[in-house]
Amino acid sequence: MDKQFVKEIADVNENFAQWYTDVVLKTELVDYGPVKGTMVIRPYGYAIWENIQKDLDVRFKENGAKNAYFPLLIPMSYFTKEAEHVEGFAPEVAVVTHAGGGKLEEPLAIRPTSETIIGTMYSKWIQSYRDLPVIMNQWCNVMRWEKTTRPFLRTSEFLWQEGHTVFATEEEAMENTMRMLEVYKTFAEETLAIPVICGRKTEKEKFAGAVATFGMEAMMLDGKSLQAGTSHYLGQNFSKSFDIKYLDKDGTLKYGYTTSWGVSTRLIGAVIMAHGDQRGLVLPPLVAPVQVVIVPVAAHKGGVNEKANEIEETLVKAGVRAETDYRDMSPGWKFNEWEMKGVPVRIEIGPRDIENGTAVVVRRDGLDKTFVKIDELGKAIPELLLTVQKDMLLRSRERRDKKIIEANSLDGILKGVEGQNFVKAGWCGCRECEDKVKEVAQATARVLCDEEGVPETCAVCGKPAKHKVIFARAY
Amino acid sequence: MDKQFVKEIADVNENFAQWYTDVVLKTELVDYGPVKGTMVIRPYGYAIWENIQKDLDVRFKENGAKNAYFPLLIPMSYFTKEAEHVEGFAPEVAVVTHAGGGKLEEPLAIRPTSETIIGTMYSKWIQSYRDLPVIMNQWCNVMRWEKTTRPFLRTSEFLWQEGHTVFATEEEAMENTMRMLEVYKTFAEETLAIPVICGRKTEKEKFAGAVATFGMEAMMLDGKSLQAGTSHYLGQNFSKSFDIKYLDKDGTLKYGYTTSWGVSTRLIGAVIMAHGDQRGLVLPPLVAPVQVVIVPVAAHKGGVNEKANEIEETLVKAGVRAETDYRDMSPGWKFNEWEMKGVPVRIEIGPRDIENGTAVVVRRDGLDKTFVKIDELGKAIPELLLTVQKDMLLRSRERRDKKIIEANSLDGILKGVEGQNFVKAGWCGCRECEDKVKEVAQATARVLCDEEGVPETCAVCGKPAKHKVIFARAY
Repeated sequence: MDKQFVKEIADVNENFAQWYTDVVLKTELVDYGPVKGTMVIRPYGYAIWENIQKDLDVRFKENGAKNAYFPLLIPMSYFTKEAEHVEGFAPEVAVVTHAGGGKLEEPLAIRPTSETIIGTMYSKWIQSYRDLPVIMNQWCNVMRWEKTTRPFLRTSEFLWQEGHTVFATEEEAMENTMRMLEVYKTFAEETLAIPVICGRKTEKEKFAGAVATFGMEAMMLDGKSLQAGTSHYLGQNFSKSFDIKYLDKDGTLKYGYTTSWGVSTRLIGAVIMAHGDQRGLVLPPLVAPVQVVIVPVAAHKGGVNEKANEIEETLVKAGVRAETDYRDMSPGWKFNEWEMKGVPVRIEIGPRDIENGTAVVVRRDGLDKTFVKIDELGKAIPELLLTVQKDMLLRSRERRDKKIIEANSLDGILKGVEGQNFVKAGWCGCRECEDKVKEVAQATARVLCDEEGVPETCAVCGKPAKHKVIFARAY
Repeated sequence: MDKQFVKEIADVNENFAQWYTDVVLKTELVDYGPVKGTMVIRPYGYAIWENIQKDLDVRFKENGAKNAYFPLLIPMSYFTKEAEHVEGFAPEVAVVTHAGGGKLEEPLAIRPTSETIIGTMYSKWIQSYRDLPVIMNQWCNVMRWEKTTRPFLRTSEFLWQEGHTVFATEEEAMENTMRMLEVYKTFAEETLAIPVICGRKTEKEKFAGAVATFGMEAMMLDGKSLQAGTSHYLGQNFSKSFDIKYLDKDGTLKYGYTTSWGVSTRLIGAVIMAHGDQRGLVLPPLVAPVQVVIVPVAAHKGGVNEKANEIEETLVKAGVRAETDYRDMSPGWKFNEWEMKGVPVRIEIGPRDIENGTAVVVRRDGLDKTFVKIDELGKAIPELLLTVQKDMLLRSRERRDKKIIEANSLDGILKGVEGQNFVKAGWCGCRECEDKVKEVAQATARVLCDEEGVPETCAVCGKPAKHKVIFARAY
């Protein structure tokens, strides 16, 4: 390993925040936009998003969703229709006041989320029980004016998908809420190789306007939690505010029950911070823009580039996203660069390898080298990519599970999160105790996990506990 | 044909504008958004856009493009850097003045197009000739505040793709401009079954800031032209305004040459108006959300729904987007509905058909019925869809070619466009004559077609002609 090269990235253990910034910029995933708090998603980063989109979109459609597109601009008056919702989002909204050379009659918000405008359209479209359920999704940009921003994790504008549904009954709507949470969880584990913990959010942490929010939380390398997706049961809050009614079989008008659920480009941040290491990114094969890079060694010798190209063609035919690096640089330089870029598998091929009929195959996740017969690469590499994908999930889960501990005092919670752990603790359910944890330990209630059994007392106040909570510091 | 059903759509010959509005709304392609001039793209319309995206995206990537995402908000000051550009776009821009609860220091424009912000990033990223060419594309929303709007054709917000490139030389940039125009043309003909005429735009009609704009024009059923895509050669206009420089091999700093090219959700409008008829939409199989609808006849009889389902499964396995309509409505009602929705092929299956081992197959584009053996549907239907696709292009081309005429006087141009034709005529090249055609005939210069041979005199002023122009009324 070329030390000079690697030292460009801050120490992953000592300065994780700087490590993150170094990695996202140097691997050209992202750059800062000219307007404060905005980001430019560069091709290498966007290709990860495209892989996420393709995969999730299939899962959504399998669960009955149809894609649509609703307007970016929402009349400000819409936000005020749902009291909690406006309180939650008004401070973050960007407002258009002028257009077409004049001042607008009513200021327009750039959508921070689309419940209000989609609810308005649903109210128009839905007449009868025959029109239900409605399950729509949109892939789009949203805007939330944030004070402190970091690429992918929190930016003024980001890309996401938002599903919005209407059901005739509470049961169906709740079933959809939990089903989509499960879709996200399966996706996170299968495709991103990130184990997640799902559960209900506290009142303080729930979505503005929801009856209940369910989130999935992923542990990053520094022990902090990242909320990687949310599914909201909205009850009749929005259907009453936006008049989403249907004529039921019994001839009476009833309000529908709605849900919404979303994940965003934040998932790219999760992938970076769940798997990376001192050398840079470590990308799960299923989302890696390049799954295999082929590096010719002693390429000036006859036949090397040709053989590399032949291997690339074999792999591409086998459905692998493979690329050959023909650039006029040393193999060592290329190894470092592609390691930093997190490409899951590297194949080295030189004159001696060709003579022996083998190629050197190096896994990014373990950096172990094996020799594989060139003739067998077309079969071996797709299998290896599956293995890497699985191993990455196993390893993440093992690492995470060691860092989930229990505590029964505020001091225990503080020590736990300082030690980069998720801390499970009893909680009485009152806002004061939740705020106290925030104040003393800079940790928040991530999700409830009552199904594991509720401890006897609240770790903060010592009164009887109503819930078991995971506390953690969070992004 | 159920007359009561069909009369809901205005007469396609007598009131084409109302026919269009009726069709887009009744087939649930689109709805009006709450903010004036905005549209909601409903699932049936969005599915067409998804098919367009998937197809075009492959073509772009084959031509070296990588997708990326640039911010929605652009500092107003960026627009003023390219003089023509600001003049062209300033009147249409929507402006954010407030965000996060306060007034912004500098107002921000919602992108009407992204040359300025992408140019700013390119200037940062491009250092050396080794960094060239840069070919990026983004799929996104843009905003242009228009006075008169119509769904898909002209709305405040629309979806599009915009490609932005930088090359070292004029030749390469011009090659890219023409290459992407050709990509659009091939796509329009192969996938949308719409024949297009490509050519250079006049100075009056070109993109604000371009050296030259090349457009593709499609003839709608009413003889009007729709600009379906544009490819701009920007020369060094933007590289000089945004300082896009590279260090060349010879050690000197040089400005790059840039291009940009785009198509939008307008293409959906083109599909509707190029192929529709009195019954509603006629969708080309390659973009149809549903390619085949199976309608059970006398479904209460045993085995009919089961057979319909079996056929659907066979077709889906053969890669066809097939659906069965099991709803409790009469077959005749369903036939009308799916005809209005433009589904390319309908299969009717009833007890007698099952007995005979055949199904009735009806083409939407011709409405001719044939009997096909049920066992052969899996092979016959994919072939039929290809035939429909080809026939639709042939028929569109034939129809269009009959409506391209020549004229050598202003009156000839007027009569020509009144007769719903494209009119080819000589033009001296001066703005006055171009404006005169607009004033007298409400027609504009669509593209130059000098390669066909320039007439001797200008049809307007009688002076020597410099160009041959296609004049038409346009959307």
